Amino acid sequence: MNCKITNDGFDVFESVKTSAVRAGIKRKGEDLALIYFEKEATFAAVFTTNKVKAHCVIYDEELLKTQQNIRAVLINSGNANACNINGAQAIQDVTKALSTVLNIKQNEIFIAQTGIIGEEFPTKKVTNALAKLKNNLGKNSQNLARAILTTDKIPKIISIECEYAGVIFHIAAVAKGAGMIHPNMATMLSFIVTDLKITQNILKVALKEAVDKSFNRISVDGDMSTNDTVFIASLNEVGDLINEENEFYRYFVDKLTECCVYLAKEIVKDAEGATKFCEVLVFGADKDEDAQKVARSIANSLLVKTAIFGKDPNWGRIIAAVGYSGANIDVEKLEIKIGDFLVYSWGRPQEFDKIALLEYMRQNDSIKIYINLNIGASNFNLYFSDLTYEYIKINAQYHT
Amino acid sequence: MNCKITNDGFDVFESVKTSAVRAGIKRKGEDLALIYFEKEATFAAVFTTNKVKAHCVIYDEELLKTQQNIRAVLINSGNANACNINGAQAIQDVTKALSTVLNIKQNEIFIAQTGIIGEEFPTKKVTNALAKLKNNLGKNSQNLARAILTTDKIPKIISIECEYAGVIFHIAAVAKGAGMIHPNMATMLSFIVTDLKITQNILKVALKEAVDKSFNRISVDGDMSTNDTVFIASLNEVGDLINEENEFYRYFVDKLTECCVYLAKEIVKDAEGATKFCEVLVFGADKDEDAQKVARSIANSLLVKTAIFGKDPNWGRIIAAVGYSGANIDVEKLEIKIGDFLVYSWGRPQEFDKIALLEYMRQNDSIKIYINLNIGASNFNLYFSDLTYEYIKINAQYHT
Repeated sequence: MNCKITNDGFDVFESVKTSAVRAGIKRKGEDLALIYFEKEATFAAVFTTNKVKAHCVIYDEELLKTQQNIRAVLINSGNANACNINGAQAIQDVTKALSTVLNIKQNEIFIAQTGIIGEEFPTKKVTNALAKLKNNLGKNSQNLARAILTTDKIPKIISIECEYAGVIFHIAAVAKGAGMIHPNMATMLSFIVTDLKITQNILKVALKEAVDKSFNRISVDGDMSTNDTVFIASLNEVGDLINEENEFYRYFVDKLTECCVYLAKEIVKDAEGATKFCEVLVFGADKDEDAQKVARSIANSLLVKTAIFGKDPNWGRIIAAVGYSGANIDVEKLEIKIGDFLVYSWGRPQEFDKIALLEYMRQNDSIKIYINLNIGASNFNLYFSDLTYEYIKINAQYHT
Repeated sequence: MNCKITNDGFDVFESVKTSAVRAGIKRKGEDLALIYFEKEATFAAVFTTNKVKAHCVIYDEELLKTQQNIRAVLINSGNANACNINGAQAIQDVTKALSTVLNIKQNEIFIAQTGIIGEEFPTKKVTNALAKLKNNLGKNSQNLARAILTTDKIPKIISIECEYAGVIFHIAAVAKGAGMIHPNMATMLSFIVTDLKITQNILKVALKEAVDKSFNRISVDGDMSTNDTVFIASLNEVGDLINEENEFYRYFVDKLTECCVYLAKEIVKDAEGATKFCEVLVFGADKDEDAQKVARSIANSLLVKTAIFGKDPNWGRIIAAVGYSGANIDVEKLEIKIGDFLVYSWGRPQEFDKIALLEYMRQNDSIKIYINLNIGASNFNLYFSDLTYEYIKINAQYHT
């Protein structure tokens, strides 16, 4: 049951073609991408929980209520198509034009968008680029992964080949992150495709579980965007149809989760200005909710984030964040470890090798913080980034 | 009913003496301060809501339960006396030594501390400095205001002389802030003295109201310390005793609130690395709680804070923060103003003079954001700072 992992993305599927072109939405580079399914694909998606939603999210949520199958996903960067004047109409115009170009139905098109909020959507630029987008269709997953980026530096792409009970199936995915990255559907886009036969209902449940264990466990800046979308499609090409939660389903969800965790970690590693990839692991909480509260409080603490950037094992800031998290805690039972170093335990600071801990902070790109509340059985883990000069630079200069 | 405002601090009171010396807790400068009352003063205080509390907070909370009067307040910077090995004992040793030096009772001493968490408290250094601290007592409020600072740049001090119904009374106060500044008793210290006759119970109620409208409405970085304390004492020298909420009481609370708001604003202006003093005013919320949620969501958004630092009127980030605040909102009714510029109203962006708004962002040290949810009658305002390179520098380098 080993898996083969590559960064071929959707190129592993014969019936999936991708394309990325420059439509001129962003100041430079490719900004319009297409995933095209040669035959109908079952689809599901999860979206931002922000009450201010981009027009694409509003549109897709409606689409999901009536539609089981999809033929195309159109993605643009450079314009979030949120809180603007022409957003809803733009989606009508663009999907209509694309349906003509691809000779598919308008309601077989899923839309995802990222970029600046509030600006008029450049419908004309996009419709003008659709013919080129179609002509360019091919095995272009790397280009697609690049075209959906905004301030990300590195494309995020994966494909895995797995075997279970003699059935060989694939999962491939791309993602975009960088900033406005927060729990609850971290502000990002991801597109996932599998060739495994699976019903829409079961696909929905599987996606929700995988996202909860991956994209919902990352935090860059605590800001949540209006456009978060994770999309999944099944080509229904291999295996017996999964229409209930059985053993094969469990295996599939595990592998799907692995792909999502890989991409989620890539997003944090490539977070705006980040120099450290951090993980906080909370154990022994009273309730799941409390474990989450503690993890999020630490991951969102500017003082913890800047201390990690400064390579400073400042556990005082960590314990303060535990204290104001709102979770039920008992200071006398609290245990804090940074890497392998126990710094606080049972109500008092511990003796540890300070030089060695400083070295750990300095020499590792990846920092782990363990919190044991020692009062219950609930756990939670969260990936996050440090807070740096570069983050300020990127976000003070990224202009409306 | 006009007031005279000076920055004399406690020097306006004949019977209050202050002192500040160097005990050697911090690397340099004065770090130990004393407020001494020549006769018993009625006192009250409010503290951090962080579940991890410094030993001084634990000590003072107990003191407040049994004690009505106070003779001295001892304050140190450089060591938070929190989560360390000898903290509780240190307070016993230090208050005992000080009671001998000042010839007062041990339980007439209130303690406030700020600085690094987790380090052993240097009891010896403090007790060694007590005699000098006593000898130095005098009209030293400016020195005291300086000695309680950590990363603050500017001492925060005020005194006002008011008259009501023929009674002339004073309120004087100092504060310390800079970082770890958050709602819910913003992470800071403040000491307030009045000469007005007032009972302890009424003083408590008055302090709570003033703090809710001032120190609880500021945010620098969303982090809440283990040491927050606002202390108030009355010398009971002028007026008839206020022992219930009457008109004189209302006047007193208004003036007390004014002092606290002044200091709260000073704290935000002097926030770590801040270049802009910002205020968000939320109107028309369904519930008070929702108005607060929206204000705090905006004030704590790293993307809003960095946009303001970048002098960028990026209202897209503001509307996103409104959306994920958790408050009940209706996007179609939402109204956003930056300064006098209406940028979003009734579900769509508005035409405004972009050049003029950019000039407003560039030329003003003080930026206002108005949010009208237009669905109810609840309001809330919050003062906050921008997020800058300097904040990162200060906090990446402030070492455990």
